Amino acid sequence: MKLIFLGTGDVRQVPVYGCKCDACQAARADARLRRRPCSALLDTGRHRILIDGGLTDLAERFAPGDLAAILLTHYHVDHVQGLFHLRWGVNDSIPVYGPDDHNGCADLLKHPGILDFRPPLTPLMPFTLGDVEITPLPLQHSKPTFGYLFELKGQRIAYLTDTVGLPENTEAFLAQFDELEIVIDCSQPPQTQPPRNHNDLNLVLAIHQRLQPKQTWLTHLSHDMDAWLMTHKLPTGVRVARDGLVMGCP
Amino acid sequence: MKLIFLGTGDVRQVPVYGCKCDACQAARADARLRRRPCSALLDTGRHRILIDGGLTDLAERFAPGDLAAILLTHYHVDHVQGLFHLRWGVNDSIPVYGPDDHNGCADLLKHPGILDFRPPLTPLMPFTLGDVEITPLPLQHSKPTFGYLFELKGQRIAYLTDTVGLPENTEAFLAQFDELEIVIDCSQPPQTQPPRNHNDLNLVLAIHQRLQPKQTWLTHLSHDMDAWLMTHKLPTGVRVARDGLVMGCP
Ligand SMILES: [Mn+2]
Ligand SMILES: [Mn+2]
Ligand SMILES: [Mn+2]
Ligand SMILES: [Mn+2]
Ligand SMILES: [Zn+2]
Ligand SMILES: [Zn+2]
Repeated sequence: MKLIFLGTGDVRQVPVYGCKCDACQAARADARLRRRPCSALLDTGRHRILIDGGLTDLAERFAPGDLAAILLTHYHVDHVQGLFHLRWGVNDSIPVYGPDDHNGCADLLKHPGILDFRPPLTPLMPFTLGDVEITPLPLQHSKPTFGYLFELKGQRIAYLTDTVGLPENTEAFLAQFDELEIVIDCSQPPQTQPPRNHNDLNLVLAIHQRLQPKQTWLTHLSHDMDAWLMTHKLPTGVRVARDGLVMGCP
Repeated sequence: MKLIFLGTGDVRQVPVYGCKCDACQAARADARLRRRPCSALLDTGRHRILIDGGLTDLAERFAPGDLAAILLTHYHVDHVQGLFHLRWGVNDSIPVYGPDDHNGCADLLKHPGILDFRPPLTPLMPFTLGDVEITPLPLQHSKPTFGYLFELKGQRIAYLTDTVGLPENTEAFLAQFDELEIVIDCSQPPQTQPPRNHNDLNLVLAIHQRLQPKQTWLTHLSHDMDAWLMTHKLPTGVRVARDGLVMGCP
């Protein structure tokens, strides 16, 4: 099982429109440094599951029938905006799983088109999609939000965004696993005030310390986080995701 | 003054995701036949005004400071979805004008970022943006929607989408002008049942007949309309818009 980062940016993306900071200038000069809306593709070898639908070119990236399912972390616009177009396709419907948020986003639930929105997932209740076992993990955010633990043949990846810290039940659940790989919201560099809605690096490092995963990957990065990274190092075991990067290969 | 069609598709765009009809196959084979979300750029030579924000790559199309304003016809997702990203820019704010619809779309009005949403426009009350005079024209649609008459140095372009037919006051207002150029919603080929929310070609041709404009341009086309056009001709004075096409040059 591998996870391909499709987008690793925060809601503003990198570069930020009109921003002249070092990180935004660098991303404008080198497309590989761009960060699109936070999303990923889980590829089990047999099935491909899209995690969040914030990319607006989904119809070009995925041929009809390509996606076994779409898994939503939450209904903020930057995580679903690509579905506004994709839904108006024909023929193959796509099952969509996510948290209990009956408002959805704009008219998405009211006019689902080919998106087959399944009943909301239950926190910490595992289910199976194709050959992978998935456990929805409650996160702390401004909307009902799930992270997900993916398990296949003893390999475990936890995808944890958007969140500020981790709720007790989610952290206790993850603490039972060795050899875990974690992908986590790190929107901001170290802050002096406790951050709201999204992790800063301090919170991420504290979680990394407590859970001791094999590897922690940072995603949902802002241009501020990228600018900080230009002059700072991360501890061993903590790595920065990039759009297009593949992780989780055994 | 010229008007550049940036997108001429209906909500589903052309090609429709997964559709194998002749029009969709043709558009997949030849990118010039694609139809993106319905929107246009009005260029007066001195100012550039974006009409609707449905394209999702606005940050790449327009440098900061490029747009004098954004004019919205209405708040359906396919007409505003590109603003979800653009709003998170920095520095230059962009004035946004549109109809009275306090719901907006998703959290756009609540979190406007650099978008400077101005008080709703008044039906049939002209105002000036840069050097162009603009009159908001009530349309008939499933949300509060304005068409617009643009006037500069005796040249007049009426942009009329999304709509089914025209309200009496709008049609009476437009009837007073000779040498008018009209851009109008023609989502569907001739229907046997009266269409809802969007024009079919029958309604468009009736309006063309009554208003006798210099030229009528069709926009907001569905793949069904495109497929119909592959085997039918339009009367003189009625032309099909295309993404990238420029009209209104004197
Ligand atoms: Mn987010
Ligand atoms: Mn969020
Ligand atoms: Mn429309
Ligand atoms: Mn509409
Ligand atoms: Zn920046
Ligand atoms: Zn088609």
